[in-house]
Amino acid sequence: MLENEITKLLNINYPIIQAPMAGGIATCSLVAAVSNNGALGMIGAGYMSPIQLREQIREVKQLTSNNFGVNLFVPGEFEIFENDVEMANSLLNRFREELNIHEEKITLPNMENAFQSYMEQIQVVIEEKVPICSFTFGVPNADIVAEFKLEGIISIGTATTVEEAVSIEKLGMDVVVLQGSEAGGHRGNFLSGHEESLIGLMSLIPQVADNVCIPIVAAGGIMDGRGLMAALNLGAKAVQMGTAFLTCEESGANPLHKEAIMHSKDGDTTFTRAFSGKWARGIKNKFIMEMEEHEDSFPNFPVQNSLTQLIRKESAIQNNIEYMSLWSGQSAALARIETVEELVKRVMDEARKVNR
Amino acid sequence: MLENEITKLLNINYPIIQAPMAGGIATCSLVAAVSNNGALGMIGAGYMSPIQLREQIREVKQLTSNNFGVNLFVPGEFEIFENDVEMANSLLNRFREELNIHEEKITLPNMENAFQSYMEQIQVVIEEKVPICSFTFGVPNADIVAEFKLEGIISIGTATTVEEAVSIEKLGMDVVVLQGSEAGGHRGNFLSGHEESLIGLMSLIPQVADNVCIPIVAAGGIMDGRGLMAALNLGAKAVQMGTAFLTCEESGANPLHKEAIMHSKDGDTTFTRAFSGKWARGIKNKFIMEMEEHEDSFPNFPVQNSLTQLIRKESAIQNNIEYMSLWSGQSAALARIETVEELVKRVMDEARKVNR
Repeated sequence: MLENEITKLLNINYPIIQAPMAGGIATCSLVAAVSNNGALGMIGAGYMSPIQLREQIREVKQLTSNNFGVNLFVPGEFEIFENDVEMANSLLNRFREELNIHEEKITLPNMENAFQSYMEQIQVVIEEKVPICSFTFGVPNADIVAEFKLEGIISIGTATTVEEAVSIEKLGMDVVVLQGSEAGGHRGNFLSGHEESLIGLMSLIPQVADNVCIPIVAAGGIMDGRGLMAALNLGAKAVQMGTAFLTCEESGANPLHKEAIMHSKDGDTTFTRAFSGKWARGIKNKFIMEMEEHEDSFPNFPVQNSLTQLIRKESAIQNNIEYMSLWSGQSAALARIETVEELVKRVMDEARKVNR
Repeated sequence: MLENEITKLLNINYPIIQAPMAGGIATCSLVAAVSNNGALGMIGAGYMSPIQLREQIREVKQLTSNNFGVNLFVPGEFEIFENDVEMANSLLNRFREELNIHEEKITLPNMENAFQSYMEQIQVVIEEKVPICSFTFGVPNADIVAEFKLEGIISIGTATTVEEAVSIEKLGMDVVVLQGSEAGGHRGNFLSGHEESLIGLMSLIPQVADNVCIPIVAAGGIMDGRGLMAALNLGAKAVQMGTAFLTCEESGANPLHKEAIMHSKDGDTTFTRAFSGKWARGIKNKFIMEMEEHEDSFPNFPVQNSLTQLIRKESAIQNNIEYMSLWSGQSAALARIETVEELVKRVMDEARKVNR
């Protein structure tokens, strides 16, 4: 059960994928350590320029000869309405003042640039012969899927509902990651609304398993061998773990972020779109709580993300967790500070014990 | 793994408990069929008078010589504010008109009566020597737990968070049912707020397993052997299944309710307190959607429940699913119309296959 079609397909020893946490958490050393220890390391390239992505890929290649992957954000269409931005800024200014941020002018994202950058990222993945590429926030178009097939690159989609999983299979992608409602960070729903997409893995995995043939990777709240075996029993072939790798020594997460996870308990996380304009699960702090009543008024991703960028950055510099995005799944209390080697070994040992 | 301390404690063959669905779903014949087939049948006594409860217990005893249980709602304090009731009525009147309901006067619940009735239910359970009694919406007081211990009645608490599970263990109760966010029907949270209590079983079970010693029963979205084995792997000793038993032939659920479940898909359920004043998960219909924006304005349970009683009843009589409470978990699409015998056999066969 622990060795199956997906460990074969991805050419890894263990059915464990490190979630492609963007924004500096999945450092090259984390990604390489995961791959070197028999699981699959993933570069979270969502916020990277094509040049940065190429550099990271090359650095990871220096650190491991095993398979690893890249995750890309599929850009969506967005419009910038001046009124919305002004409204958001008027809500955000108090935090800027508190953090002593005096920004001249915030650079707002540009849709054409975002699409251009994404297409260039795809070319980097192909040119650098990255063996595995996953997508979030939507699916690549059929041309990209076809090109990947030609190049022998395995493509992975991210789904939150049966409908989304089925559409990923129909597109011809090779694997589907199922993001349960337990998962930390940004939601990957792209056909379903936010509320409708909040399905617990206990419900989501078997329903998708009954409707698709491609292998399923389960993501959300999985932290140890118990979660791994449960996911496999429900019909998944592997798990993708985020929070568990986030607190690893090799992760680039801010130490305060790691500490917040270590000290949190079940029920401490919530959904917010105040940080980025896209719903995401993180540990409640002052920023989330104070913005709660304004959730509906923020511009969409990635506009709001640009507006809060300096707030998050400056908050981290000032060692103030109240305005940082403390992404975490619902199992934060199960996190440990350990090395990737210890984590992977522990999960596999536990899984074998559970499996008896 | 499938025979463990909980099958021994409850004296059942299989680690499966039928969720004590109140309001006529868990008929005597359903309860008895479950117990006769080696699982644990549960009478959902929440809305029953002590006299009705005694009758049901005696009827079940006629139908099975195996162990069965009773579930009670722990009454909470509530106040009736005329303004709130008027406000709710003004929202509900359009449905009454549409259903042609001309009620003279709605009988509102009385708190003293509710507490009195609950204490009498407890006495009925003791006098009738029911071997197992579970509680929802709170915990019984220490005197009741002590009396049950003296009488040899096994007491089961319902929790939605680690904190609630720990409090149940500290009280001296014997078993804890963990209600995941996937679960259908009313939420059992009593220390945590609604939002904080929405934890997926993949996260909830292992976190509770690390914090309590009493056996855990997992509830929410579990419909087959895959879910059973996953729950056991996560640290539960048994599962409690509601929706799966609701569509059984022996269940007293309205055929339209069964049909709605059979035809629904993931994402079709949502939380509402418009039916009863307490958050509950059910399949979206016109009533839920139209009341969505007023969720915060309804009186608390059981006041709102009284106000909507005739609407739900008349809607059922008129074969109109739009104003019925179609409680269901997130795995509705996995439901089947079958007998209890077929369901229990299938779940166990699947579990043994998953377990290999």
